[in-house]
Amino acid sequence: MRKPEIGIGLVGSGFMGRCHANAFRSVSGLFDVPAEPRLELIADANDDLAAHAAQALGFARSTGDWRTLVADDAIDIVAITAPNVLHAPIAHAAIAAGKTVYCEKPLSTTAALALEMTEAADAAGVITMVGFNFLRNPMVKLAREIIAAGEIGDVTGFRGRHAENYMADPDVPHSFRTDPQGGGALADIGSHIISMARYLLGPLAEVQADCRTVHATRPMSSDTDQRSSVEVDDMTHALIRFESGVSGSLEANWAATARTMDLSWEITGTRGALAFTQERMNELRLWRGAPGRSGYTRIEAGPAHPPYGAFCPAPGHHLGFNDLKVIEVAELLAAHAGHSVCSPDFREAYEVQRTVEAMQQSHRLRQWVAL
Amino acid sequence: MRKPEIGIGLVGSGFMGRCHANAFRSVSGLFDVPAEPRLELIADANDDLAAHAAQALGFARSTGDWRTLVADDAIDIVAITAPNVLHAPIAHAAIAAGKTVYCEKPLSTTAALALEMTEAADAAGVITMVGFNFLRNPMVKLAREIIAAGEIGDVTGFRGRHAENYMADPDVPHSFRTDPQGGGALADIGSHIISMARYLLGPLAEVQADCRTVHATRPMSSDTDQRSSVEVDDMTHALIRFESGVSGSLEANWAATARTMDLSWEITGTRGALAFTQERMNELRLWRGAPGRSGYTRIEAGPAHPPYGAFCPAPGHHLGFNDLKVIEVAELLAAHAGHSVCSPDFREAYEVQRTVEAMQQSHRLRQWVAL
Amino acid sequence: MRKPEIGIGLVGSGFMGRCHANAFRSVSGLFDVPAEPRLELIADANDDLAAHAAQALGFARSTGDWRTLVADDAIDIVAITAPNVLHAPIAHAAIAAGKTVYCEKPLSTTAALALEMTEAADAAGVITMVGFNFLRNPMVKLAREIIAAGEIGDVTGFRGRHAENYMADPDVPHSFRTDPQGGGALADIGSHIISMARYLLGPLAEVQADCRTVHATRPMSSDTDQRSSVEVDDMTHALIRFESGVSGSLEANWAATARTMDLSWEITGTRGALAFTQERMNELRLWRGAPGRSGYTRIEAGPAHPPYGAFCPAPGHHLGFNDLKVIEVAELLAAHAGHSVCSPDFREAYEVQRTVEAMQQSHRLRQWVAL
Amino acid sequence: MRKPEIGIGLVGSGFMGRCHANAFRSVSGLFDVPAEPRLELIADANDDLAAHAAQALGFARSTGDWRTLVADDAIDIVAITAPNVLHAPIAHAAIAAGKTVYCEKPLSTTAALALEMTEAADAAGVITMVGFNFLRNPMVKLAREIIAAGEIGDVTGFRGRHAENYMADPDVPHSFRTDPQGGGALADIGSHIISMARYLLGPLAEVQADCRTVHATRPMSSDTDQRSSVEVDDMTHALIRFESGVSGSLEANWAATARTMDLSWEITGTRGALAFTQERMNELRLWRGAPGRSGYTRIEAGPAHPPYGAFCPAPGHHLGFNDLKVIEVAELLAAHAGHSVCSPDFREAYEVQRTVEAMQQSHRLRQWVAL
Repeated sequence: MRKPEIGIGLVGSGFMGRCHANAFRSVSGLFDVPAEPRLELIADANDDLAAHAAQALGFARSTGDWRTLVADDAIDIVAITAPNVLHAPIAHAAIAAGKTVYCEKPLSTTAALALEMTEAADAAGVITMVGFNFLRNPMVKLAREIIAAGEIGDVTGFRGRHAENYMADPDVPHSFRTDPQGGGALADIGSHIISMARYLLGPLAEVQADCRTVHATRPMSSDTDQRSSVEVDDMTHALIRFESGVSGSLEANWAATARTMDLSWEITGTRGALAFTQERMNELRLWRGAPGRSGYTRIEAGPAHPPYGAFCPAPGHHLGFNDLKVIEVAELLAAHAGHSVCSPDFREAYEVQRTVEAMQQSHRLRQWVAL
Repeated sequence: MRKPEIGIGLVGSGFMGRCHANAFRSVSGLFDVPAEPRLELIADANDDLAAHAAQALGFARSTGDWRTLVADDAIDIVAITAPNVLHAPIAHAAIAAGKTVYCEKPLSTTAALALEMTEAADAAGVITMVGFNFLRNPMVKLAREIIAAGEIGDVTGFRGRHAENYMADPDVPHSFRTDPQGGGALADIGSHIISMARYLLGPLAEVQADCRTVHATRPMSSDTDQRSSVEVDDMTHALIRFESGVSGSLEANWAATARTMDLSWEITGTRGALAFTQERMNELRLWRGAPGRSGYTRIEAGPAHPPYGAFCPAPGHHLGFNDLKVIEVAELLAAHAGHSVCSPDFREAYEVQRTVEAMQQSHRLRQWVAL
Repeated sequence: MRKPEIGIGLVGSGFMGRCHANAFRSVSGLFDVPAEPRLELIADANDDLAAHAAQALGFARSTGDWRTLVADDAIDIVAITAPNVLHAPIAHAAIAAGKTVYCEKPLSTTAALALEMTEAADAAGVITMVGFNFLRNPMVKLAREIIAAGEIGDVTGFRGRHAENYMADPDVPHSFRTDPQGGGALADIGSHIISMARYLLGPLAEVQADCRTVHATRPMSSDTDQRSSVEVDDMTHALIRFESGVSGSLEANWAATARTMDLSWEITGTRGALAFTQERMNELRLWRGAPGRSGYTRIEAGPAHPPYGAFCPAPGHHLGFNDLKVIEVAELLAAHAGHSVCSPDFREAYEVQRTVEAMQQSHRLRQWVAL
Repeated sequence: MRKPEIGIGLVGSGFMGRCHANAFRSVSGLFDVPAEPRLELIADANDDLAAHAAQALGFARSTGDWRTLVADDAIDIVAITAPNVLHAPIAHAAIAAGKTVYCEKPLSTTAALALEMTEAADAAGVITMVGFNFLRNPMVKLAREIIAAGEIGDVTGFRGRHAENYMADPDVPHSFRTDPQGGGALADIGSHIISMARYLLGPLAEVQADCRTVHATRPMSSDTDQRSSVEVDDMTHALIRFESGVSGSLEANWAATARTMDLSWEITGTRGALAFTQERMNELRLWRGAPGRSGYTRIEAGPAHPPYGAFCPAPGHHLGFNDLKVIEVAELLAAHAGHSVCSPDFREAYEVQRTVEAMQQSHRLRQWVAL
C-alpha cells in the first residue's frame, strides 16, 4: 500500500533551495513520514533558471513566477528559499491560498513585517515552519532534555556565539546581506544563536549590544572596484538577561577570520554544565561532578539520541549539515498531517527578529533595552 | 531535456541497504551525474520483506528472490548489500548477466572466492565497485593528495586503527560476524583500515598479527541464554611493512569499549605528518614545521576539498556518514557511463581480503607472512 | 666566584606565599640571575605561625609582625602575599624603607588606594612589581609578539574570559573574597583577564558590564550554618572597547561549575587569529590561511619560546603553574639589579583595578563608562 | 626545630642533572620530607665544569672525579645523571660505599650489567631508585588506582606509544643515543612506555618487535659533514602480551616529526577505558557508560589527585615536567628514611631493560620472544 503523496512547491534554488530539495527527496527513505513528498513545482527568478533548477533538483515542473506556484492546486506545501525581501509577499500569498508555509530564516526583513506574517497565518489557521535547522541536531535536543530534566541543576549562566568568516575579507562585495534593512551579522547569523538560546533557556528579558562595522567599505558588486560604505554590523557583542534571571553574553560575527561554523555555547548550571559547538556537531559535552572524577564528558551522537537512528543504526557515524534539514522536513510533514505541532513557527521567528532589533536599538541608544 | 535513466536493483535492505537507497535517491540532486538512477527493483529474503522494503525505501517493484532481480532487463546496476555469504553467488549471476556490480565489503567470505569473482568480472568486462565508503571522505582524498605531492616529505611511519565497541558486550550473540569463515574484527573492520592504508601509502609487503578472542563464548542467538565458543578475533594488533619500506602498526578491534568509530591513523613523513580519525571525519590535521610556529593544523572540510562543494557551498558545515555513500554512488554512475575508472573495484577488494588472510595466517604461524 | 646575595622578606605563607617561597628557592638554579636570593625572613599573623612557615618554606628567621620585616636591614625585597586589606599599609611601609616591593594582585582593595601606592612608589623611586603571573607564560608572550609583528593582520575582535568554580557551591562561606570592598569575581579573577587583554591589545577605552550575584546568601563562616547576604558578583559579563577601536567581550565567573582555570581568549585579526586557554597553558593556537590548508595550528611550548628553555631543553615537556612564578621572580631580580624595567608594576595594577571599578560602576549606572 | 639534613651528591649537570638539582632545592618547601636535602657536592667531567655547575645549580662543593664524590662522607645519596656508560661503575662504587643510589634511566647499557647492579645493591642492602619520572604524574597514579579498583572492569587491550621528534632530522649527528650498545629509540624512550605499561598492567609475557632505522647515516659529530652508518632503530613497533593475557601494541619513535612528547596510551576494559598522553599531562580521560550519556570524561588534575596538592591547593593549575622530578625526590627521601619502599628500584629498571632487549632479539629472529 503506497502512502498518500503531498505536493511540494519550492521557491528558490540557491544554497538553501538545493538543501530543501535534497531533504524532500530523501526524507521518506529515512523517516516513516505520513505522506510521500512529490517534487511538483519549482519557481525561480525566470523560466530558464527555473527549468534548469527543475532538472538539476528533480522537480516535475517549473515556473519563472512564484505567484503561479503559490496558486497551483497540486501544491500542498510552499517552501520559501527566495531572497529575504520576497519572504513576506510569497508567504502572504501562500497563506491566502491556504498552503502550509515553510520559510527560511530570517522570516522577513523587519520584525514588523514578520509580525504581520505571523498574524496572517494565525488568522488563516495555516501551519508554518521556519528553517532554524541547527535546532534539529539530536545533540541540541539532548541538551534541551538534559536542562529540562534538571541534570545540571539550575541554570546560572550562558555564553554563546555564532562566528563565521564569510565576510572577513573586506573585498567581499555588497549583497542582500549588507542591505541596511534587516542585514548585518546580527540578523544573518546572530539569529541562529538567539533562536538556540531561546530553544534551550527560554525567552530573553533584556539586551544590551555593541554592534560594529569592521570593514567601512565594500565593493558595490563583484564586477567593480568601486566601493561604498557599509551600514550594517560585521560583529556584535551583547549582554543578555533571560526572563529566568540567567545572565550571559552572545556574539554574532561574520568577520571571524578563523571560524567557519562556530555556533557554540556553554551553559552553566549549579550542578553541571553543557558545551556545544556546531564545528563538532556530533558531540555534546556534559560536565558532571564526582569525587576525583569530575569533568566534561564528550558524548558522541548515536541512536540513543533521536532521531539519529533514522540515519544510521550505529553510533559515532555522524550526521551532516544536510541531514538536519531532512529532520526538519520530517517534522514539517508530521505537523502538516496533524501529528504534531510545528515549531519553530512564524511566531517564534518573529520573536527572534524582535530580539535582533532590540539589540540594534540598544546599540544606538547605548543602553539596555527590555523585550 | 531530461537525463537518461539508469535502473537500479538493490539486494538487501538492512543498515547498508538503506544507506544505498538513500544515496541513489539523493545523488542526482547533488551531483551532475550522467544518468538519473531509477529505483527499479529491490530484493530481500522473502516477498513480504521485499514489498515492505520497496515501500519504505521508494523502489518501484520488489521480489523475494535475488535471481529475479539479477535477471531483470530493467536493471543496469546490481547493488549487493545481502549477507556476506551471498555476495559471491549474486555477483557471479550479475556478472553473467552483464550488469555493473556494486558490492558491499567484504567482497566475499574468503580471498579465494573474492579472486574468482574478480576474474569473472574481468573476463566478462563488467564494471565493479566495492563499498569502502570511508575512502570517499574529502579529507581522506586531501590526505592522499598531500602525500602524493610530497608535502610531508618521504613517508616514514604509519599507525592505524579501526576500533568500535559493537561487540564489546560479551552478551552480544553470535551472528554472521562471528562465523569462523571470514568473520572476526579483522575481517569486519580491519578491512577498512587496511583499505585506507593501501589507498594512502600503497601495497603492503609483509604482516605479522596477533589475533585475540576476548570473549570466549557468546549466546547462540538473541533468543537464548545458551552460549557457544567464539572462534574469531575480537581484537587484532599487527605489525606491517609496506612495499615502499614504510613500517607501522595496525589494530582492528570491535570490543573497544570507548570507541564508536575510531578509524584513525597518523602518517609521519620526513617533513611533516598527517592525522585523521573518522570520529571527527570533517577534519584533517596537517603538521608543518616553521621556527617557533610548528604544529598540527586542524583543517576543516570545505569547498576547497572536492567533492564537499556538491553538498554545501560553505565550509565547516559538515558532511555526514550517509554523504560518503552518495559520493561513492556518484563515482559509480560516472564509471558506469565510461567517464572514469571505477575504484576500489573487485580486484582491490580481493587485495584487502588477501591481506586479512595473511594476517590471520601470520597469527597461526606466529611469524611474519609476505604478501 | 659566588654571586652576591639578595635578602628576601616574605609576608604571608598561604597559597601564594608558598608559591613565592618556591620561586625564590628555585630561580637561581634555572635562570642566570644577577643575585642569589637568600630566604631571610618570613612574617605571618603571629610568631608561631611565622616560625612554622619559616621551617616549612626554608626561611632563616621569622616574625609575627610584618613591621619588623619591612624595617629589617637584611631585607632587599619585600614580597607581599598577605590578605588584600594589608597590601596598602605593608607596601607603604616598604616603600618608605626604600625596599623593592613585590605585591600579589589585587594591588589593593580600591583603585584609589592603589593609586596612592603607585604615587608613593614613584615618589620614592622604588621598584615595584605585581604578581600577574599568567602573563609570564611563554605562550602568552609569543601571542603578544605575533600580534605586534602583524602576523594576524590588524586585530578586529577580542573574546575573553576567566572562569573557575571555587565559589560555585552556595555553601562556600564568606571570606575576604566576598568582602564588598574590592571583592567579587570581577575583582578576584576578572583582573587576570583584564590584565591579559591590556598586555596583548593595549588600554581599554569604554566598558559596560552586567554583574550578578548567583548565590544570594552564603554561610557567615565555615563554623556556622548561619547565612548572610552576598553583596559581590559571582559572575560578570562585559562589553569592552579598546582605545584601538577593537571591540569585544569579557567574562569573570567564579561560579562556573565546569571550569577550574578557563583564563581564555580568542583574538581575531584581518589575516589570522590566536586562541589560548590556561587550561592548556602549554599550547597556543594560531590560525593562518592557505588555499585548502587554512586552520588553527596548535603550537606546543618549547625552547623556541623563551624563557621555556630555562626549565627544559626539550620541547613539549610542559611548564606548570609554579614555573610561571619562577619566571616572574627572575624578571623581578633582573629589574632589581637594574637590568630591565619591572612590569607589570604598581601603575599597571592600578590601571587594572580602575578598569574593574569602571565595570562595577557601569553595572550600577546600566550604561557605558569611559576609562 | 630544624629537620635533619641529608647530603646530596650529584654526578652530571646536563638536562637531567639540572632537573635533579632543582628538585632537591625545591622539595622541602613543597613536601613535608623527613630530612632537608643539603646540596653538598657535584661531580662533572673535569674540575672546571664541576665548579661552574656548582655555582649554577647551588652546590656547596665540586669535583672533577666522581670517585671522590662517591667516597665523600658528607654524601648520603648519590644521584647519577652521567652518561649511560658510566652508570654501572658509579653505581657499583656508591653501593660499595653504602650510599642510597638514585640513577637516571636507562640503568645501564645492557640488561646483564643492570642485573649485576641490581644484585650488588640487594647484597649490600642499599636503597635504589631509577628516574622513570613520568610514573610520578598524579594522573598516571590515578589511572593505576582506577584500574586496580576495577572501575573499567577487566582490562582487555593496551595501545601505547612514546614518540618524539628529536632525531627526526637526518642531520642530527651520532651521540651516545646512537651507540649500538644500548642505544636506539627503543632503549631511549621505548623504556618509558614499557615502564608505564608495567606500572599500570603488570609484567609482559611475550613480545614481537619490528625495529627500523629510518636514516641510514648521520654526521659523525656536530663538527663534520662526514657521515657514518646508523646501527640502532629510529622507530620500533611491537606486539605485546601481558602475563594477564591482555594483548596490545607499543611504539617507540624518536623520528616522529609531529611529536614532541607523545608518551600516550589507551587502556580498554570490559566496562570502561582510560586514555592519556603526556602532551596533556594534566588530563586523564576516563570512559564510562550510561544510557545516552556514555563518553570519555576529561579529568583535570587537582588536589583530589595526590600529590598534586603539594604544589597548589587549586585544581586545574597544572603541574609541569620538573614537578614530576620533585615528586620523585620526595618519594626517594621518604624511602631513604625508611618510611616507604622505593619504587621503581634497580630491579624494576632491569626488568624494563630486559624487555627492551627481548624486543631487539625478537626483531633479529623475526619471531615472538618470551620474557
